[in-house]
Amino acid sequence: MAKNNRQWRLAAHPDGMPREDNWTLTEGAAPEPGNGELLVRSLYVDVAPYMRGRISRQQNYTSGVSVGEVMTAASVAEVVESNAEGYQAGDLVVATTGWQEYAAVPAGTARRVDPKVADLPHWLDFLGTNGPTAYFALIETGRIKPGDTVVISAAAGSVGQIAGQIAKICGCRAIAITSTEEKLAWCREIGYDDGIAYRNEPDLAAAIARVCPDGVDVYYDNTAGPILDAIFQNLATHARIVVVGTISLADRFEQPDIGPRFMRKILVSRARVEGFLAGDYGLRFDEAYRRLAAWQKSGALKSKFDIVDGFENLPAAFMRLLTSKNLGKQVVRVAEPGHAG
Amino acid sequence: MAKNNRQWRLAAHPDGMPREDNWTLTEGAAPEPGNGELLVRSLYVDVAPYMRGRISRQQNYTSGVSVGEVMTAASVAEVVESNAEGYQAGDLVVATTGWQEYAAVPAGTARRVDPKVADLPHWLDFLGTNGPTAYFALIETGRIKPGDTVVISAAAGSVGQIAGQIAKICGCRAIAITSTEEKLAWCREIGYDDGIAYRNEPDLAAAIARVCPDGVDVYYDNTAGPILDAIFQNLATHARIVVVGTISLADRFEQPDIGPRFMRKILVSRARVEGFLAGDYGLRFDEAYRRLAAWQKSGALKSKFDIVDGFENLPAAFMRLLTSKNLGKQVVRVAEPGHAG
Repeated sequence: MAKNNRQWRLAAHPDGMPREDNWTLTEGAAPEPGNGELLVRSLYVDVAPYMRGRISRQQNYTSGVSVGEVMTAASVAEVVESNAEGYQAGDLVVATTGWQEYAAVPAGTARRVDPKVADLPHWLDFLGTNGPTAYFALIETGRIKPGDTVVISAAAGSVGQIAGQIAKICGCRAIAITSTEEKLAWCREIGYDDGIAYRNEPDLAAAIARVCPDGVDVYYDNTAGPILDAIFQNLATHARIVVVGTISLADRFEQPDIGPRFMRKILVSRARVEGFLAGDYGLRFDEAYRRLAAWQKSGALKSKFDIVDGFENLPAAFMRLLTSKNLGKQVVRVAEPGHAG
Repeated sequence: MAKNNRQWRLAAHPDGMPREDNWTLTEGAAPEPGNGELLVRSLYVDVAPYMRGRISRQQNYTSGVSVGEVMTAASVAEVVESNAEGYQAGDLVVATTGWQEYAAVPAGTARRVDPKVADLPHWLDFLGTNGPTAYFALIETGRIKPGDTVVISAAAGSVGQIAGQIAKICGCRAIAITSTEEKLAWCREIGYDDGIAYRNEPDLAAAIARVCPDGVDVYYDNTAGPILDAIFQNLATHARIVVVGTISLADRFEQPDIGPRFMRKILVSRARVEGFLAGDYGLRFDEAYRRLAAWQKSGALKSKFDIVDGFENLPAAFMRLLTSKNLGKQVVRVAEPGHAG
C-alpha cells in the first residue's frame, strides 16, 4: 500500500514579500517509482534564498514554480525503493524532491551521500550548491588574491559563512556584513577580520569606510539594495562586485528597484560588476567539493546550521530565512535516516 | 618680443549642463620655453566628452581643472622654438597645450606627428586617445568575438565611429545608437549593420529589441542614462557592458543619477558591467596605432570630422559636442601649419 505523502504546493505567486499562505499543504499517495527511478524519503529539506526567484512571475535564470506545483527544493533523502541499478533501500542521496515527504526521482539525477565525508546537513550546504557557489564566485568571478579586502553581505548566511572562510584561506582580509551583532560575533568566530551589523549603522557608507579604510577590492553581493549602494561609495580601483544574490529585494522582486545608479563610480574606478550563477561551473563542482571537504577536515572550514524540525514548518522556515532570523544555514529536518520503511 | 597668447580659462565649475560662460578668454604673453621644453603653437585643438569630467567638482579618475586655470586639452601643434634636443621649429607634435594658442611643454611629453601616416586631425582621433579607447575597450574589456551583436551609443561620435568599424573588422554585427537619422545614415555608410536614432523612438527598449532580436552581447556605453536602461532590458546571456563614457549625464554630473537598478538582470544574465579607461592600456597604445593605421590605409577605417574654425569658438564647439550637434569627431582649427613664426 502506498505511503501517505505530504506536499507543500505553491498557492499563489507573491506580490512583494512572500507569506506563509503562498503555499498550501496537500496530501496524497506516495508515487510509484518508474523504471530507472528511486522512491526516496526526504530527511533534510532545503530552504534557500534562490527559491525567492523561483516563485516569482518574473523571468529568471531557470523556469519557476507554477501555482499548484510542489515547491522546488533539494533534500538529503533515503532510498525507500529502487528501480535503478546500483541503488538499494537505505542508500542516502541528494535529490530534487521538492517540498514533499516522498518523491520518485530518476536515479541519474540523484547524487550519492557519503556520511563519512560529512554529516547529512552539510550535503545541502558546502557539499551542495553553497560550497561551489562561494568557491567559484570568489575564485573565478571575483578573482580574489592575497591582500584583497573582500566584503561579504549576508555574511553569516549559508553561502556567506563559506565565502568568508574561503577568503581567509586565500589570504584576503574578510569583512562581514550582517543584520545583527549576534551574527557578526559568529562571523568573527569563524575568522572574519572585521565587519558591521548594518541595522545598527545610521550611515552605511561611513561604516564600510571605517572597516575598509583602503576601499573594497571585492564585494560578494548576496543582497543588493542599500548595502550595495554603500559599497559603491567605497570602491578601490579595479574593484570587483560579484552579484550572487539580491535577497534585500525579496519584498519587491516584481517591481524595479529605484535608486542611485553608479555608472560614474564604475567608470572612474574601472570597477567590474558581474552576475554569477553556480550552474555555469557545474562541470567543475568536484574541484570545489574536494578542496572544501579537505578544508573542513582540517578545521579551516566551519559551518553553523539553523535546523527547524517538522515538515509542516517548511514555509515558516523559508520566511525565517527571508527575514534574516536564521543564524547559519537554514534546513528543515523532516525525518531521521534508517527508518526508510 | 613674446607673441600674444590667447587662453580659455575655467571661470566657474558648471552646475548641471555646462555653458559657454563657464570659461573666460584671457590674453597674455606667450611663455618662454625652459630647458628641455618646446614652445608650440596650437593648430588643431581638441574638444572631447572626457573634458566634462575634468571641469566637475566631483572626484574623477584624474585631477580636474581649477577655476582660473587654462582648460585642459591636447592639440596638434607646431614647434615654434625648441630648447630640447631632437626638435626644431616646424616640427609637428601632439602636446597637452590646453585651450591656448601657445604653450611651453616638456619635450618628453610631446608625441611626434608624421603627416605621411595620416592627416593632422587624425592625430586627435584614431592616432590620439580615441583609437586606443575603442580598440582596447572592445578587444580587452568587451572581449568581442565574431558573431557578437555589438551595440554602440554615440555611434557617430569620435570614439563611436571607430568602435563600430573595429566591431565589423572583428566579425561582429555592429548596431549604432545615434541621436538623429543624419548620424545614423553616416553610421550605415561606414559599415554599421543597423541602428536606431533614439530621439525618434518612443520606446527605446522595444527599439533595441527590434534591431537586436537575439539580444545584446556587447554594449559599448558612451552615454549611460535611458539608452543603458533600454540595453538592460535586452541582455543576451553573458552580455558585457563596457562603461566608457556617461555623456547623457552631462547635465547632472554633480547629482546622483536616480533610476531603475538592474541587479536581477545582471544576475540572471550573468552579465558583466565594467568600467574602462584607456590610460590603463597606455603601454600598449602602439599596438592599437599600428593596427588602426593599417586599417585606415586599407580603407577599412574611415573618419568624419566636424571642424569648427577659430580659437574664439572653443567653448561653443564644446557645447556643440555636449548637445550632440556635431557629426564626426569635433575639433577646432586654430591655425595652419607652416606659419609657425
